[in-house]
Order: sequence, then C-alpha cells, then structure tokens
Amino acid sequence: MKLATYKDGSRDGQLVVVSRDLGTAHYATGIAARLQQALDDWSFISPQLQDLYEALNSGKARNAFPFDPAQCMAPLPRAYQWADGSAFINHVELVRAARNSEVPKTFYEDPLMYQGGSDDFLGPRDDVVVPSEDYGIDFEAEVAVVTGDVPMMATPEQALDGIRLLMIANDVSLRNLIPAELAKGFGFFQSKPATAFGPVAITLDEVGDAWDKGRLNLTLQSAWNGRKVGMCDAGPEMTFHFGQLIAHICKTRNVRAGSIVGSGTVSNKGVAGANGKTEWPKGYSCIAEKRAIETIQDGKPSTEFMKFGDTIRIEMKGKDGQSLFGAIEQKIVPAAK
Amino acid sequence: MKLATYKDGSRDGQLVVVSRDLGTAHYATGIAARLQQALDDWSFISPQLQDLYEALNSGKARNAFPFDPAQCMAPLPRAYQWADGSAFINHVELVRAARNSEVPKTFYEDPLMYQGGSDDFLGPRDDVVVPSEDYGIDFEAEVAVVTGDVPMMATPEQALDGIRLLMIANDVSLRNLIPAELAKGFGFFQSKPATAFGPVAITLDEVGDAWDKGRLNLTLQSAWNGRKVGMCDAGPEMTFHFGQLIAHICKTRNVRAGSIVGSGTVSNKGVAGANGKTEWPKGYSCIAEKRAIETIQDGKPSTEFMKFGDTIRIEMKGKDGQSLFGAIEQKIVPAAK
Repeated sequence: MKLATYKDGSRDGQLVVVSRDLGTAHYATGIAARLQQALDDWSFISPQLQDLYEALNSGKARNAFPFDPAQCMAPLPRAYQWADGSAFINHVELVRAARNSEVPKTFYEDPLMYQGGSDDFLGPRDDVVVPSEDYGIDFEAEVAVVTGDVPMMATPEQALDGIRLLMIANDVSLRNLIPAELAKGFGFFQSKPATAFGPVAITLDEVGDAWDKGRLNLTLQSAWNGRKVGMCDAGPEMTFHFGQLIAHICKTRNVRAGSIVGSGTVSNKGVAGANGKTEWPKGYSCIAEKRAIETIQDGKPSTEFMKFGDTIRIEMKGKDGQSLFGAIEQKIVPAAK
Repeated sequence: MKLATYKDGSRDGQLVVVSRDLGTAHYATGIAARLQQALDDWSFISPQLQDLYEALNSGKARNAFPFDPAQCMAPLPRAYQWADGSAFINHVELVRAARNSEVPKTFYEDPLMYQGGSDDFLGPRDDVVVPSEDYGIDFEAEVAVVTGDVPMMATPEQALDGIRLLMIANDVSLRNLIPAELAKGFGFFQSKPATAFGPVAITLDEVGDAWDKGRLNLTLQSAWNGRKVGMCDAGPEMTFHFGQLIAHICKTRNVRAGSIVGSGTVSNKGVAGANGKTEWPKGYSCIAEKRAIETIQDGKPSTEFMKFGDTIRIEMKGKDGQSLFGAIEQKIVPAAK
C-alpha cells in the first residue's frame, strides 16, 4: 500500500491513500486523518487503509482524484524521531581516505548514527531554504524506514518485524559547517537542516523480494541540475541493515511508533577501470563523496557544492521500471533576510 | 498557568490544568485534549486554559479533583524535538579539568547542544529502566523550555519571545557509554536514554521576576537516595540563556511549536574554602560532576554512579518556598530480560 500526506494548511496535513501506479489518490478520511494516527494503531487501521488501496487500484474508489506530488508534505510532516545511520561504510571509507584518516575497526561492528531534528520536515517539492551558499550545500540520497513500537533490547531480527513503511529521503547537509561542529564533540546540529522525504511511504509488500532481510535491493537515482549523477545500489553494500540500525537505538531505549530511521548516503565501491584507475560507474548519492573521490585521485576536489537555483531529483524504481515512491524534486533557494 | 498530562492509557494522555499550589486539577477537555494541540494553536487556546486556571485557583472550577503527580506523564509525553544544551560552562570546565583537557575558547561563544530522542519521555514518577548498572547510570537535573514556532535565523531576543513554558528535567545519562560514543564523532545516542520531566509545565508569569531575560534565577534541588546533594543556582551562571540556545538551532532551521530545549546540567562554580581548598557548597546536579571534583582534588573519583534501587528527587521552589513544578521522583530499575 502507498500512503501520502496532502497539504491542507495544517501542521500535519491529510492522510491519502495513493494507487500503486501513483496515478490516483483518495482521502483516508473516516479511517485515519493523519499518518501518525495510523502508525499509533497500525494493526487496527492498516487493514482498512489496505481495503481502500485495493478499491483505488481496481478503479472502484468513489472519490478518487489525480495524485499530485506537488500537493504532498513529507508522509510524516513532523515525527517523534529521526535517527539517521551511516550504514554504507564505503561512504565513510571514501570521506576518511580523502583526509588521510583511517576507518576505526569498530565502525564495521557498531553502526554510526546521529539523532536528527524531526519537527519540521520538507515535502518532496518544497524548496531547500539555506541562509548562505557558503555553508557548502549538499544533497544526500537515502532510503528510510518508519517503525512501529520496538522495545528496549530488541535484537536486529525482532527490530525487522517493527518496520512498517519504506521512504526515500534527501538528508540535506551543510558540509562547511560540519568540521567545526563535529570538533565540538556533540555531533551534528546546524550542519543538518530540515530533511525532505519522497511523496509516498510504502509497505514492504510493494517491493516484493527486493526487500531482503532489512536491505532494499534496488537502485536509488540522483539527478543534479537535470544530470544523472547517481544510480546507486541501495542493497548489498549496506553494511548494517535496517534491523541492526533500529536495534542500535534499542540498546538503551524503546523505539516508539512513527520513528524514522535512515540508511545514510547510499554508496557503492569503486571498480578497477581499463587504465588501472579506480572508477565509480554507479556515481554518487552526495557531492561530498564525489569530492572525496576527486581528492583521492587528483589531490583536491574539483566539483563545487550546490548553488542557489540548483535542483536535485531523487527517485527509486521497482523491478517493473515504475517509480515506487514518486520523485523528490527540490530547488535550493536563499532564506529571506 | 500550570499544565500537566494525565495518564489515560493512550500515547499522549489527557491535558489537565493544575492549580498554582498543585493541590487540585481539572481536565481541559473541551478546550484541548493534549498539550501539543494547545502549543500548535497557542494564541487561541491558551486564554481559554488561563480562564480555567483562574477558576481552579479561586475554587470555582466545577469538576476539580485532587492533583496526583503519580498520575502524570511528561507534560509532553512525546515531542517533535528535544534539543539539550550544555549551557553551564562550569560543568564543562570541571569535567574537562578532571581529564586534563582544556575548554576550547569557542565554547564560550558558541553553545554546545545535542539532539536527543523525543519519542518516549518518562513521567515524573516513572522508573528509569536500564539494562545494566555497568553503563554508569547518572541523573542530570536541568531546566527546560517549550517553544512555539521560531523561524530560521531568529536572533536570541526574537527566540525569547517564542518561549511558552518552563519545565524541569532529569536527562538520564549512561556515563560509561559516553567515551566510546563521542569518539565515533556523531554525538550521543545510546548514552542518552529516555529523559524524564517534572509533573507540570508552567508559563513564565508563574515565576515573576525570577525569569530574567532567558535565565531562571531559582535553585534546582537534587536529592539522591534521600540525601540532598544539589542546591544549585539555575540562573546567573548559565553561560548561554535560553534565547541563545534556541537561536543556535535557528541558524539553519525553523524551530516548530512543541520543541523542548534544555539547559544541560545546572552547575555552579566552586568557592575558596577556609583551608585554601576549593569547595562546592551548592553541591552538584549530576554525579559526573561530583566525580570530576573528586578527581581534581584527590586524583580519582570516589563516588560511584547509581545502582538499581537508587532514587533521585529533583524539585524547584519559587521565592515563596512553594514547589513550582512538583517533584521528579524516580527509581532506577533493571530492564526485564
């Protein structure tokens, strides 16, 4: 089933069910007004949403209307938790190699994760508002899951059972603010502004066997200013699967319904090219990684970060070639003074 | 006005208005069912709550009942943001001095702050459930504010206008998990389990001129296993006031209604004692600070962290000697295997 949240002027918007082909939608009014409400009481509400979804797919939903991603807020316009992993260690390896720093051995056993702000998410077509280009504006294409309740001390396998929905995300990052911020020791804060999510959140059955025990074996596409820069495999190279990421949080806390957990930048290893040089044919899911590759190969980065007016498009297609989540399509704009 | 959230078996509980003396309460049903709802539409809803509060204080509220802090969830049982500062630099100075590390100069100009989990707060009498005593269980007595909407790039003065409510908090910390976690560079995560809040949240007018441009000039009391260990001034020594803390978040983001911002451990400077030795007559608001003082004075800490069965009581009184928020009273218990 596919779920979205339509703008209605309120903080939480209106829950809509969206057809599998993303062609039509139907308000879930009468079942649940908001997605959080459905997640709070999933076993009771989700079968009713599923019934509406099936009616919609078969053209039998009475008040269906054309689905417009531009009317969407993030599926959860605000959430009680946004915990973002850095589960593709290849990304960490590249960034560290570019600054001649080794990856600690523990990074291969214990996931990296930061707690993000979750009070003000962006919809899939909302502008990315940044006070200054000097902050080093970057996109980060990611896969994310929305959870139900997962208790403290849950194992990775138990945590997998707590996954309710899949989403795609643009975890906007302000790269030039990161070094000073991490040097303070308390993690990211100003360097991680509002995150955007794709138009619809989908249940696991929508991806069939592409969902492989906590990894999503599909390609995440990123196009920067209309040019395809990333066609990255989101599955096999994910060092820690989503069950492991959730269990990481559960070591000392309960994880409550509606928590969003992200994969971090989807990243694939380079391959040996014809001239013996390493190549990255699948491209990149964030500019920082492209710059790290340039630094490793040429001694310095040559690709600049995003400028005001730049656009980013992030999408993932199913095995049938159809868009699974709809596309994130955003423009970078300056904050009003 | 004083507001609390009563347990009713739901995730968000029921909003109640509590009398100034904490003696009686009244459901806010018909005005707002939940505190978040009131914060989302504060200018419309708060005058109605204020009317009920005045009726309650004058003994004219029809369905008043005795207020019982044991029935309370956190005023916001879950929130869209919990951003905790470390605004008392004296605390940072002590902890760093104990490990022979200097405080960077920037720490006096730029607040330290971490993003905390906000999906599963504890009520004022809820047990603190921890999987192991080996994690180094500590309390942290803090003051916190709840905000309305504060826009990106707000100044500290503008941010002060966005403060709606005051609370007290126990930001439980697992000290032995911190060094490895901070070494990873992404900030706190497993070392910061669920935070507890005092029974009631109060508006600024409840503290009169003790609220001094973003600082609360009152004493925060901590009693560990019934023994008073901290009588710390929460006001003058707060290096960054709450407006500055909120503005720190606003540098690159909007802060949305219902965000909770904490002061960090309330901490006071030592004074020269009779024998020339520095003394800390006001005590401490977390055990880590006591251990830092012991390390500075004796070369090693002698006070151990909390054990299962230990209790912590945190309270703040007004100038009239009456409890402002009610008391946080919690017991440390092991997680069920």
